[in-house]
Amino acid sequence: MLSDNIRYDESGDLLFAGVRTKDLADKYGTPLYLMDEDRIRANCRMYLSAMGAAFDGNWEILYACKAACYKALIQTVAEEGLSLDVVSSGEILTAVRAGFPMDRVYFHSNNKTEKDLVFALEQGVGTVVVDQLSELALLSRIAEARSEDQDILLRLTPGIDTHTYEAINTGKVDSKFGFAIETGQAVDAIELALSLPGIRLKGYHCHVGSQVFGEDVFERSAEVMLRFTDEIGQRTGYYPEILDLGGGYGVRYTEDDPEVSIPDKIASLARTVRAVCAELSMDVPRILLEPGRSIVADAGMTLYTVGNVKRIPGYKNYVSVDGGMTDNPRYALYGAKYTVLPAVLSMKSRFDADLVGRCCESGDIIQPNVSLPEEMKPGDLVAVCTTGAYHYSMASNYNRIPRPPVVFLHDGQDRLAVRGETLEDLLQYDL
Amino acid sequence: MLSDNIRYDESGDLLFAGVRTKDLADKYGTPLYLMDEDRIRANCRMYLSAMGAAFDGNWEILYACKAACYKALIQTVAEEGLSLDVVSSGEILTAVRAGFPMDRVYFHSNNKTEKDLVFALEQGVGTVVVDQLSELALLSRIAEARSEDQDILLRLTPGIDTHTYEAINTGKVDSKFGFAIETGQAVDAIELALSLPGIRLKGYHCHVGSQVFGEDVFERSAEVMLRFTDEIGQRTGYYPEILDLGGGYGVRYTEDDPEVSIPDKIASLARTVRAVCAELSMDVPRILLEPGRSIVADAGMTLYTVGNVKRIPGYKNYVSVDGGMTDNPRYALYGAKYTVLPAVLSMKSRFDADLVGRCCESGDIIQPNVSLPEEMKPGDLVAVCTTGAYHYSMASNYNRIPRPPVVFLHDGQDRLAVRGETLEDLLQYDL
Repeated sequence: MLSDNIRYDESGDLLFAGVRTKDLADKYGTPLYLMDEDRIRANCRMYLSAMGAAFDGNWEILYACKAACYKALIQTVAEEGLSLDVVSSGEILTAVRAGFPMDRVYFHSNNKTEKDLVFALEQGVGTVVVDQLSELALLSRIAEARSEDQDILLRLTPGIDTHTYEAINTGKVDSKFGFAIETGQAVDAIELALSLPGIRLKGYHCHVGSQVFGEDVFERSAEVMLRFTDEIGQRTGYYPEILDLGGGYGVRYTEDDPEVSIPDKIASLARTVRAVCAELSMDVPRILLEPGRSIVADAGMTLYTVGNVKRIPGYKNYVSVDGGMTDNPRYALYGAKYTVLPAVLSMKSRFDADLVGRCCESGDIIQPNVSLPEEMKPGDLVAVCTTGAYHYSMASNYNRIPRPPVVFLHDGQDRLAVRGETLEDLLQYDL
Repeated sequence: MLSDNIRYDESGDLLFAGVRTKDLADKYGTPLYLMDEDRIRANCRMYLSAMGAAFDGNWEILYACKAACYKALIQTVAEEGLSLDVVSSGEILTAVRAGFPMDRVYFHSNNKTEKDLVFALEQGVGTVVVDQLSELALLSRIAEARSEDQDILLRLTPGIDTHTYEAINTGKVDSKFGFAIETGQAVDAIELALSLPGIRLKGYHCHVGSQVFGEDVFERSAEVMLRFTDEIGQRTGYYPEILDLGGGYGVRYTEDDPEVSIPDKIASLARTVRAVCAELSMDVPRILLEPGRSIVADAGMTLYTVGNVKRIPGYKNYVSVDGGMTDNPRYALYGAKYTVLPAVLSMKSRFDADLVGRCCESGDIIQPNVSLPEEMKPGDLVAVCTTGAYHYSMASNYNRIPRPPVVFLHDGQDRLAVRGETLEDLLQYDL
């Protein structure tokens, strides 16, 4: 199995987090997002323990909540002691309402509006990760007007090419994000940050990309950042307290994806960081990582009911389900791969089919060429694995389809974490 | 200009539908969806008048509301006398609340659930466009239980390849939609439909694709459908009242897109239909067309405020605005092209920049390589043209960003048609 929270019991029923998926579908209906709370907690603890072992207490793990952001989830990561990476006022408000300790919140975005920055400071956001020169000046003005100094990091682009999809490759120089080291813009930003009132430069941030499986991408970016830190230190005397290396450890969506041992990666990263710092005779800064996908992706599963099975002799087969690109736009956006399982294990023959959604659009494909039981019929249940990240958060009401509920599973028990939309909800904004 | 509802006045301010965009941004904030109601009405009338001239009273124009579906819009097309193509219970409820005459509603979808079909019949939907064999049997049962006959069309796939994007090419045989003529499945479906109680087969539907600019795609599909109609008629004696040829006339997003004269296309289509019917000694059926995009696309414009302008020497320039893939996912999904205009016309030098959004994702691009005034700065207003179709309807809350309001413009006056979401709205489903 792709993940050890997925298994079939002796009667052939699919269990997720130890709970029979059929029972959950009966209780809540489909489409249905399931979240294995125990797996979320285990993923948090895996990070905390790996960082603890590798970095001697001077570190922090931020959950990048753009992957999935609603109160129940934010409360869960708060309880586990993580910090939080938010990217909008909406995510900040969610953190506030979840009772998240706001001093542990880091606010990213390539384009924070003045309203966003004022809101962030009013809500006590601990650190603003400044992305643009104009933002630096604006934040300084806002903080000064409040007579409070605001902690910031500067987002730098170290120029690392991760060879992943272009859409999720953000550490290279040519990016809407941050200040490029290569062009000298990072130096300019640091000098401005150090000179401006109302802001306290705590360190640097970088993010090299998502779904990184390669051996040394984080180590290479850490090394680029540390050597740059030393260069700035030599020149200005400024050495940052914090080095935030972003997120991006790869998650397995199919059996073909490589297994990544995040603790091993973190241990190896720590060795590189210590070695480079030793070489430069520099104190090891506080190291921050920002996992999002690797905290929640494998804690998620989506259940769908089959609406029809269409066989076109000589062409292809289609299994249409009651969700689609509205609850999972990742195949349409990225050609993302998924593992699809029937809710009842069948020993009988298999057939290949495109698993497609119910939207009125040919591109509404959840996954092409999936192997499914040949006797699959309307009413049967299908599960798509690893849907905990970038599914609920990216969902839309295209075709005026309501967004499904999110159900948390903990210790064999289920509870509603986000209620599903009703048809009436869809009309609430229409005048 | 791309469209005659867009112009700059003598002081260089951008007007849309005769209204100064700056004033609208000041009044409603940005991002802001604008809809030129007069243009929507003119597009409706263009279709009605072209069909009237071409088809001697025996025709119907259905607005495909997946392009944009909210009460104000549905009311507008109802007032113009169009019929409606809906694809979900959410769209049906919108039609009901808009007071749309439900007998003029056609319900499409490759995967209508039992609940959807029951809801459709309860709400008096005039015609169900049946897409699958299992749906035919299900609908027959539901209609019989209600002791009412339900009008249906059958969606057939004529096997026309439109050479457009795969994602919007739905008339070919290999499709999740409908019954293929080539494989004999269309014949099977017709025979079943004619034999089942509770349903009244009114005719056939096909849809060959979206953004069709080619000369004869609709004529080819009409000819395929008519010859097939004759073949079935010869065999079974059944001749349909209705032939629904779907939608798909191309819309200009940039000056490079060809101009399509829809009235000329419709006139030419009518000649083909009449010629083929004459050759087959067959009555001309009632012809239906289902425009969506060509009714609303050029009635739309999105206004954004520039947050920052980032120049990376030797690489690229980025202009970040306060919206993005959340309100316009079409570049991320399809690489869609757009015309971007500054709200103030500048005679000065231009620079090329990627117009990007505020989402924390590199793929959050509204349009790459746009020519904009070089002096563009934070706070300036930018307009993206032709955003009336598949923008509000496809919008998401990714990054917990609220969806913008929709403002209708009519006769130089503005009114709110859909209110924008608040941060509080985003949290309403969280438990």
